[in-house]
Amino acid sequence: MIALDLIGIGTGNPEHITLAAIRAMHEAELILLPRKGEDKGDLADLRRQIVAVHLGEAAPVVEFDLPVRDASGGYIDGVNDWHDAIAARWKHEIDAHLPQGGRVALLVWGDPSLYDSTLRIASRLGLTPRVVPGVTSLSVLTAAHAIPLNDLGAPVVITTGRRLRDEGWPPGADAVAVMLDAGGAFGAIDPAGVTIWWGAYLGMDHEALIAGPLADLAELIVETRARLRAQHGWIMDIYLLKR
Amino acid sequence: MIALDLIGIGTGNPEHITLAAIRAMHEAELILLPRKGEDKGDLADLRRQIVAVHLGEAAPVVEFDLPVRDASGGYIDGVNDWHDAIAARWKHEIDAHLPQGGRVALLVWGDPSLYDSTLRIASRLGLTPRVVPGVTSLSVLTAAHAIPLNDLGAPVVITTGRRLRDEGWPPGADAVAVMLDAGGAFGAIDPAGVTIWWGAYLGMDHEALIAGPLADLAELIVETRARLRAQHGWIMDIYLLKR
Repeated sequence: MIALDLIGIGTGNPEHITLAAIRAMHEAELILLPRKGEDKGDLADLRRQIVAVHLGEAAPVVEFDLPVRDASGGYIDGVNDWHDAIAARWKHEIDAHLPQGGRVALLVWGDPSLYDSTLRIASRLGLTPRVVPGVTSLSVLTAAHAIPLNDLGAPVVITTGRRLRDEGWPPGADAVAVMLDAGGAFGAIDPAGVTIWWGAYLGMDHEALIAGPLADLAELIVETRARLRAQHGWIMDIYLLKR
Repeated sequence: MIALDLIGIGTGNPEHITLAAIRAMHEAELILLPRKGEDKGDLADLRRQIVAVHLGEAAPVVEFDLPVRDASGGYIDGVNDWHDAIAARWKHEIDAHLPQGGRVALLVWGDPSLYDSTLRIASRLGLTPRVVPGVTSLSVLTAAHAIPLNDLGAPVVITTGRRLRDEGWPPGADAVAVMLDAGGAFGAIDPAGVTIWWGAYLGMDHEALIAGPLADLAELIVETRARLRAQHGWIMDIYLLKR
């Protein structure tokens, strides 16, 4: 019997971890720690740091290389094939390190519910995980700017850069949170009257924030994003738009 | 000079608090703890419990009674007047207990960004708070059901029971998270092909969960909600709908 924990750890500030997450880490008999390649080294480093702080050097950590996603076909097909391949890697490591069964954990960036693939990968292995909720990148973004996500009694749409670029401003809401933008999807919408609150490396020491009228800032954000990405070798950023 | 911290504490599980929230509580020279009246006694109790566990009996806590919201006029006007009155209460307590200035904190249910009024109340006092992000009720709901909020690459709308009741299924998304529902707003939509994941008292010992086809469960959820509300004297519940 394998028990699986998906543990939300927040987005980069080690103090954004919860007491429940620390407890679950202590209960794990195996912690799988994915390496995402050189370009996202900071993320693996942060997971290593969190494990080392709370469990010490004796932590039952096994690192494994994530398979590479094939971006040659359709987006959804490519992602589904990639999740199949990751599930096979998980199974390989679990079989190798917990042959008698036991409790395995993965540390999930942010919260496992929001634009994260670990729940879908777990279902491929027939596992129903225990999920330990974490602080989302949206909460860290709005906290950093000291703003609410929603206006009083008003709705919010959470969507992707791809959707914003392809479909424009989503119907039905004047507040839109955008995640997984490969860069500058806000260029697809009319910036008149739109305010943006942008953040990169949220919660980390080199967190970067920009806020103000989109018409004035779109170019600055695109330039800043490219510069920081070159400087650090990777970037994760999200933003909130309101009109 | 007054420094204000708004500290997200999660939704009811004391272990959903973050290390950053505990640190901020230790730094506070005054912690304002609102009483919401008998009907939500559990919420004030949870805040008292969290303070007692982490700061002990010497915590600089001052309790105050929240003013009563006037529901006789329009909804938005009524809420705005209420926020004015709460801001005046805050100011009264801060002036009385920190006459020389200092650091005051409020413990916010869930996360301060999501359908919470403390940021709006702070702005009435001209204060720009430091926000400590917390685990949202949406993350606790999806964790309890072990489901993702969004489908792969797909958007999510977060809205209120009032909106769902008045405007029906929001355009542009097949996943809708509903908060602040006074009960049964899902009755306003066609339940065919809709799945609901419902949760009340999320994170608390008496957490209640129901999930499945809305057509089969709408009546059960309305009845369960009424029964639990009568039993505990109050209820807070949210749900996710997908079609």
